[in-house]
Amino acid sequence: MGSALLSDLATEIIIPVCALIGIVFSLVQWFIVSRVKFSPERDCSALNNNKNGYNDYLIEEEEGINDHNVVVKCAEIQNAISEGATSFLFTEYKYVGAFMVAFAILIFLFLGSVDNFSTRSHPCTYNKTRMCKPALATAFFSTVSFLLGAITSVLSGFLGMKIATYANARTTLEARKGVGKAFITAFRSGAVMGFLLAANGLLVLYIAINLIKLYYGDDWEGLFESITGYGLGGSSMALFGRVGGGIYTKAADVGADLVGKVERNIPEDDPRNPAVIADNVGDNVGDIAGMGSDLFGSFAESSCAALVIASISSFGIDLDFTAMCYPLLISSVGILVCVITTLFATDFFEIKSVKEIEPALKKQLIISTVLMTVGVAIVSWIALPPSFTIYNFGDQKVVKNWQLFLCVGVGLWAGLIIGFVTEYFTSNAYSPVQDVADSCRTGAATNVIFGLALGYKSVIIPIFAIAISIFVSFSFAGMYGIAMAALGMLSTIATGLAIDAYGPISDNAGGIAEMAGMSHRIRERTDALDAAGNTTAAIGKGFAIGSAALVSLALFGAFVSRAGISTVDVLDPKVFVGLIVGAMLPYWFSAMTMKSVGSAALKMVEEVRRQFNTIPGLMEGHAKPDYATCVKISTDASIKEMIPPGALVMLTPLIVGTLFGVETLSGVLAGSLVSGVQIAISASNTGGAWDNAKKYIEAGASEHARTLGPKGSEPHKAAVIGDTIGDPLKDTSGPSLNILIKLMAVESLVFAPFFATHGGLLFKIF
Amino acid sequence: MGSALLSDLATEIIIPVCALIGIVFSLVQWFIVSRVKFSPERDCSALNNNKNGYNDYLIEEEEGINDHNVVVKCAEIQNAISEGATSFLFTEYKYVGAFMVAFAILIFLFLGSVDNFSTRSHPCTYNKTRMCKPALATAFFSTVSFLLGAITSVLSGFLGMKIATYANARTTLEARKGVGKAFITAFRSGAVMGFLLAANGLLVLYIAINLIKLYYGDDWEGLFESITGYGLGGSSMALFGRVGGGIYTKAADVGADLVGKVERNIPEDDPRNPAVIADNVGDNVGDIAGMGSDLFGSFAESSCAALVIASISSFGIDLDFTAMCYPLLISSVGILVCVITTLFATDFFEIKSVKEIEPALKKQLIISTVLMTVGVAIVSWIALPPSFTIYNFGDQKVVKNWQLFLCVGVGLWAGLIIGFVTEYFTSNAYSPVQDVADSCRTGAATNVIFGLALGYKSVIIPIFAIAISIFVSFSFAGMYGIAMAALGMLSTIATGLAIDAYGPISDNAGGIAEMAGMSHRIRERTDALDAAGNTTAAIGKGFAIGSAALVSLALFGAFVSRAGISTVDVLDPKVFVGLIVGAMLPYWFSAMTMKSVGSAALKMVEEVRRQFNTIPGLMEGHAKPDYATCVKISTDASIKEMIPPGALVMLTPLIVGTLFGVETLSGVLAGSLVSGVQIAISASNTGGAWDNAKKYIEAGASEHARTLGPKGSEPHKAAVIGDTIGDPLKDTSGPSLNILIKLMAVESLVFAPFFATHGGLLFKIF
Repeated sequence: MGSALLSDLATEIIIPVCALIGIVFSLVQWFIVSRVKFSPERDCSALNNNKNGYNDYLIEEEEGINDHNVVVKCAEIQNAISEGATSFLFTEYKYVGAFMVAFAILIFLFLGSVDNFSTRSHPCTYNKTRMCKPALATAFFSTVSFLLGAITSVLSGFLGMKIATYANARTTLEARKGVGKAFITAFRSGAVMGFLLAANGLLVLYIAINLIKLYYGDDWEGLFESITGYGLGGSSMALFGRVGGGIYTKAADVGADLVGKVERNIPEDDPRNPAVIADNVGDNVGDIAGMGSDLFGSFAESSCAALVIASISSFGIDLDFTAMCYPLLISSVGILVCVITTLFATDFFEIKSVKEIEPALKKQLIISTVLMTVGVAIVSWIALPPSFTIYNFGDQKVVKNWQLFLCVGVGLWAGLIIGFVTEYFTSNAYSPVQDVADSCRTGAATNVIFGLALGYKSVIIPIFAIAISIFVSFSFAGMYGIAMAALGMLSTIATGLAIDAYGPISDNAGGIAEMAGMSHRIRERTDALDAAGNTTAAIGKGFAIGSAALVSLALFGAFVSRAGISTVDVLDPKVFVGLIVGAMLPYWFSAMTMKSVGSAALKMVEEVRRQFNTIPGLMEGHAKPDYATCVKISTDASIKEMIPPGALVMLTPLIVGTLFGVETLSGVLAGSLVSGVQIAISASNTGGAWDNAKKYIEAGASEHARTLGPKGSEPHKAAVIGDTIGDPLKDTSGPSLNILIKLMAVESLVFAPFFATHGGLLFKIF
Repeated sequence: MGSALLSDLATEIIIPVCALIGIVFSLVQWFIVSRVKFSPERDCSALNNNKNGYNDYLIEEEEGINDHNVVVKCAEIQNAISEGATSFLFTEYKYVGAFMVAFAILIFLFLGSVDNFSTRSHPCTYNKTRMCKPALATAFFSTVSFLLGAITSVLSGFLGMKIATYANARTTLEARKGVGKAFITAFRSGAVMGFLLAANGLLVLYIAINLIKLYYGDDWEGLFESITGYGLGGSSMALFGRVGGGIYTKAADVGADLVGKVERNIPEDDPRNPAVIADNVGDNVGDIAGMGSDLFGSFAESSCAALVIASISSFGIDLDFTAMCYPLLISSVGILVCVITTLFATDFFEIKSVKEIEPALKKQLIISTVLMTVGVAIVSWIALPPSFTIYNFGDQKVVKNWQLFLCVGVGLWAGLIIGFVTEYFTSNAYSPVQDVADSCRTGAATNVIFGLALGYKSVIIPIFAIAISIFVSFSFAGMYGIAMAALGMLSTIATGLAIDAYGPISDNAGGIAEMAGMSHRIRERTDALDAAGNTTAAIGKGFAIGSAALVSLALFGAFVSRAGISTVDVLDPKVFVGLIVGAMLPYWFSAMTMKSVGSAALKMVEEVRRQFNTIPGLMEGHAKPDYATCVKISTDASIKEMIPPGALVMLTPLIVGTLFGVETLSGVLAGSLVSGVQIAISASNTGGAWDNAKKYIEAGASEHARTLGPKGSEPHKAAVIGDTIGDPLKDTSGPSLNILIKLMAVESLVFAPFFATHGGLLFKIF
């Protein structure tokens, strides 16, 4: 079989070094962003120690450019947004913390009960000649990993939010100097988040493995079983982040729009609208913190899935540490690749006009994918033995290193294809969105019909891309191949997150410009950034769901292996029933989240109306609205409303596994995976298309677009209705489904030994 | 094992006698409806030979009751609708006929090639001691059955349409005498269609079996394999009926509404609207002819699936004719039960007020289910041996007769539950629809969000009902149990169709009243009938999709058996890839059909606008619009647009089976089944709920409803937008999905021997 070229020591060094490079690079970007100052004397940021930013204002002369009142106003608004977001996240974490503790205890008890809390070692499952650590240890370390994953996830989301709320007003200020400067500020801030998250996730996982290894020693089976808790922790926090944040952001957005735009006829982000701060807070807690936790979860889960399968393959059996760390090495190289890729956007080229924004972002995707392909090839060559065996449902399958390279590569490129297809269906530069905009001529109904049809259609190619990745990687290296394909798709996560986070930051920047009363030229620039941001957000969601599909399948495979099932036969009624019920779960979950957004938005509408009716002079701009009450309504509603969908996701695997057993649970996982991925893609793209169709009419950049506009025309009103409907689809129910499918899979994996031992009570009784 | 109590001779007599009773009962109902005359001298119906109907007018004195001009006008409108519908169906059949011949040739060639067109007999597959007829014979008789099924399906749809267009104006006339009389006329007409279709389908199948048996003799394996062509024929015609009819009806409806209600502010069905005749034609070709073909297809397929599995079970091996005919006996008894059930609505009780309509229809469901349960028990007792074996993927499973009774019973009662849940979610008597109506306060966007959430939520219980039916029947009697559960759900098809067809007839009746300029009291009565009709239409769709799910699964099981597969393992990449792509197909298909409706509606909008702009005096009512052009636009558009979705459904199994083989095809079938059933249910219910939310506001029957109205208020406008969006969901894409999942399954079944022999080319090459 041979062994890897890379020594174990080199592996031990490369991984943390790459992670540290990522962290340093992220801090450098932060430092550059921080050089944009609000004013030399009144700076509200902590890092204020030079006057560089202040002098910058004079580079390009424009209306109001040195008006420090505007700058002060920006700082105030930024503070309000940051405070609102922080307060929401702390409230959320309070509830989530309680859940975390309770669930940690549950994990310990369930897994400990597998072997009746015995402290004696037992022969290993896959290598009977060796002794493995007791199930109680696995229970304990799974619980520890779970908590570690949860904390890292929370930290990722929180830091992302902090950076975004630090960068939004700075982007507004830079927009005064031109679209290029604004773009680079928003993009750098996105990069801070992207690199911090990717490097942090990798580093914590690496350290956790090394620490837990101190106890387990050569029992890698138990070691990596315990490590799966890390994925579960990451994903369960992501659930609440996505769902809670998603409800928050859309309740505020829909509520603000319904009264502001529709009833009162005031523009978006108008400071007179009481829900406007809540709306901007929402972008940060939903699209930034939620998205960050989600992708961190995917990364953690695919790494864990790969590791747990590898531990019972030749890597684990032969104790080949370098090969075992192949998934981590891929992620490490990914960080380096993303560093280089980022320089293309920030240093090698400069954006000069609005038209260059989308191509620049697209180039990021292409460059990172091409470079990463080389990176994967190198890692596969030096870190893997030329030939090895992979555990594949009871058999050991012989795999060559180039086959594993193809597995990672196919995932990586499938991600790019999904990204491009998503762009095609959601960018207003192409015909699908333009057709949707055109259908607004005959009213909101045709707009909705065309938008839904667009979303359904946009599913086709991504699904084929996912299906081909699955087939290729599955055929070459079983479930390990799938996990590696998922990691391949996620290997450029830092770049993906950077272009993804850039969107909400620009959106916020536009909101701040509007609220601070800056000129329309600034708003036009931020709007152009934001329109590109809608597309990148959709691309990000495409990646998130594509990788979620692969991750879930890998986790499903790991679950099946760990639960000791060798076939999941659709012709078994237990499985088929699971399959059809599983396919229903995404609908149930979407019904809950959409209804939640609807109800929360109605509450917001009532409050906004109340303020307009009772605060004298508000509509005329003499009086200030009560922003805080709206922030509180969004906070309370989202905390309350995230519980039922959260319970559905967390309890389903436990109930099904305990009562109906592992076969039915396998069916449920497969069903929810194949059904959920479709709804998630179509919901994200439908929403993105509606949003950009509206922006297409508003921008009026082409002959065709001008026939539909201007703002306030009948087609524009129809487009606004579509946009509002799309909000919960693209930012709440759609992206939350990623978590639904991933989380149920990883939870089943963690509890697999329990279900295999004590599950299927109902069938045992009858 | 024992044998059945019922002799073969008795079976041979009972089945055709029951079918004939159904036909006679249907003719009696027709005769009663035909007694409503347009006028003694100017009657346009063929059966005019007494003056009874004429004198009827004097029973209850009302405004305009004896105004023969109105009556003449009704007759004219009815003629126009009938001609439009006939012309559309004939155009459709021309294309479909060409397809039918081409596909028949394909079947013959593909199945003939299995054994290289050899005319020699070969040992049977499941009983090697016996000789079976050559594959060429199966190819020939499959082709014949296919044509028989196709013709029967076309006939069912056509007759249904004829009856509906015969009854609609008669319902209008009867509405002058009161809501009870109108109800009974519409209901009797529905019953004509229901019984004709159920009895006809059974009789043709019965005769076909007996005739083909003359050739096959004791080779029941070949005999019933050939008979599966009957299901394929029925279902492929249903595809074009549903899709073509669905596009027709909604293009006309949406087009008429967008210009009439929204732009010109004239009421629904106003005779000035040029698309109004096309709209009324659409109800007949889509909801009546399409629905008829669809349910006929389900009936034919579930019977075929049961028969083909029985033929390789002990019934077929022991040549036990009575037991073999158990599925047909269930359907026969179903006709008798439905005759009795119908009498409860038409003769035993009388509807006196609007409020009694929905309960009366609900009672029909309950009575038929209760009586049928007794019927099934009797048939199971006398037609089955106390114990027998059923083929179950390679094994023979021992089954008792009471277990088979439970299989049929669970399907029957699951149907009732689905019906009630659908009613709860789509009737405006309950809170879900009232909540949707309430959300119209904040505009169209919240209406759409709440409506979509309602549709998603309405999936939960039906899926559990289907899952339980599957589990119970699968556990007791394998795939035969599933097929029998499907037949159980369809056993009361005559009643189901009667209450289903009643809806569009009432809808048309209302349209005719409006167009003929009858008083508002008449319109209110027909509107009340129609509101109940929306609910019954949704219930009908619930039955259709529920039974389609079971039928498809049974066909899937039969396909798997016939293709010689013993497990369909999700952990096999070939299968999983099929699963995820299969789950995508309903989205692709829906995208096509919704876009088709959208495009066709836009064409209609242009024509209607053109007529309003160019025909002087049209808006004032001085000039007549050009109805015929609108009818032609709908006809042409729907014929053209039904081809791509049709091709998707018909070609997918052929391409997948030929290129990727039976494993991948199994995955595709399972994936499209579990995913399609969800979208179909949610689409139907969302659409039904929006329609009834609008009607709820319009009717203003409660305090709450009045705060939302009246017609023309902002909430009402929002409700109209929801209604328009729901049109293609509930009448085109949703119900067409039934056919997608059934047709792919039955096509796979018919071509299974070909795929098993020559399939999987791509994998063979690489």
